[in-house]
Amino acid sequence: MAEAITSARNPLLKRVRALATRRRDREAEGCSILEGVRLAEEALRAGVTLEVALYTDELAARREAAGVLDGLAAAGVRRVRVPADLLARVADTVTPQGLLAVFRIPGRTLEELVASVALAAPPGDRARRAAGPLVVADGLQDPGNLGTLVRSAHALGAAGLVATGGAADPWAPKVVRAAMGGLFRLPVAVEPDPEAVVARLRQAGVPIVVADARGERLPWEVDWRRPLALVVGSEARGPSPAFRRAAGGTVRIPMPGEAESLNAAIAGTLLLYEALRQRGG
Amino acid sequence: MAEAITSARNPLLKRVRALATRRRDREAEGCSILEGVRLAEEALRAGVTLEVALYTDELAARREAAGVLDGLAAAGVRRVRVPADLLARVADTVTPQGLLAVFRIPGRTLEELVASVALAAPPGDRARRAAGPLVVADGLQDPGNLGTLVRSAHALGAAGLVATGGAADPWAPKVVRAAMGGLFRLPVAVEPDPEAVVARLRQAGVPIVVADARGERLPWEVDWRRPLALVVGSEARGPSPAFRRAAGGTVRIPMPGEAESLNAAIAGTLLLYEALRQRGG
Repeated sequence: MAEAITSARNPLLKRVRALATRRRDREAEGCSILEGVRLAEEALRAGVTLEVALYTDELAARREAAGVLDGLAAAGVRRVRVPADLLARVADTVTPQGLLAVFRIPGRTLEELVASVALAAPPGDRARRAAGPLVVADGLQDPGNLGTLVRSAHALGAAGLVATGGAADPWAPKVVRAAMGGLFRLPVAVEPDPEAVVARLRQAGVPIVVADARGERLPWEVDWRRPLALVVGSEARGPSPAFRRAAGGTVRIPMPGEAESLNAAIAGTLLLYEALRQRGG
Repeated sequence: MAEAITSARNPLLKRVRALATRRRDREAEGCSILEGVRLAEEALRAGVTLEVALYTDELAARREAAGVLDGLAAAGVRRVRVPADLLARVADTVTPQGLLAVFRIPGRTLEELVASVALAAPPGDRARRAAGPLVVADGLQDPGNLGTLVRSAHALGAAGLVATGGAADPWAPKVVRAAMGGLFRLPVAVEPDPEAVVARLRQAGVPIVVADARGERLPWEVDWRRPLALVVGSEARGPSPAFRRAAGGTVRIPMPGEAESLNAAIAGTLLLYEALRQRGG
């Protein structure tokens, strides 16, 4: 049976609101929130731990919600019914679709991610050559852009993603939403210091390729069939100096049009496509 | 000298509000609005006709606005000073950055666009072979997605874009903003009826390739070095039956990840990249 909340002063609602709005609360607890039936289904399918799910009576009455409510029950997730106006008050979106869940962040360490890329192609082991690049999201402050890049990185077979250099919190609700479930599958780490990312990649012998509007090589001139870290910097500021200095190469997307640039998430996605194409799809 | 408006009941403000919010007003007048210094500069550079520019005293005092205000004066654009609160009331964005302009929509007809693609590669004329595909945005209802696709299509050298099948109005302010100036350069036409688009492409002998998550060919298995129409459908509903029936081929993006799909604008952008790669960048 589901519990019920009727007061806005309920401590659980306060906790949800804190997780929705404050990065330091998410980091302290190792939890964040997701909203909507589809994301809850994705999280369940990916085996992400859900601590508690809040939903409205209106949602419970909808036929298309039966599957996810059964799934939550089967997974032993604590379920709490909440009036719609209270749920809307703690949610990140204006219309949280009647369902909100607290999930345990499936974060990885930088060390784990770099090791997985470095080990992806041991000499002579051609069978394992198909691992995609490790994406380094450097200073991507826009949550929608970061989420889109996560979604693409997962879809196109990247090895993982590291958020660094002032990038948005990958576990912020807006990023979770834009990633459309990709965050529940793609290994993701946070390392604020670009120098630390560079040091770890160097130590593991993983070369760094930096996406740059003025890069020297075209995408198809880079050999993507090897372990690589692909640095995608912010549109406004470009990649951090640490990555520029450490780069084994810079790559640009050719643009016949006179537009100044592509969106950073889109540029990163194109390069991940090129890497996938070279690996044979 | 700039004129000044002080009353919210001013007819010009009412007209701007109508253009910002109502498609039928934009279509009846052949005008839309843009917001912000950067878009105004892009429009001036692209030679788009600006009918009137509204701006605040705060903007006029900012050093970085001097260039665009000079440019507007040099182009003979009518300039009107407006209090910030009145400008915010008629603008589409919450923060219109102190500048809003009415521009004449540089729209093209379907006939013009199809003819430009069909003529791009006359037999034996290899020099003109580099024209990119004509993008058909079929039922893309999200203004941000449509704008992103326009931006990418321009950057990656597409021949133009046709909005059809219930797609958002390409001249809606949200699309103009997401396209980041791409709409002022890329030839764009609106034709609500997909059957009319198919008929015109057939008549001109331009083959149709449909992007589809369950498409039969991989992007690099399609020959993009010829005149083509690339149909990008909505994520939710997929391409219209008219395009499915008329398609000379369907193409899918390979996705090693378990994500359901890529965003329609991103999928379209990847295929335009592939087309550009095959044409040599």
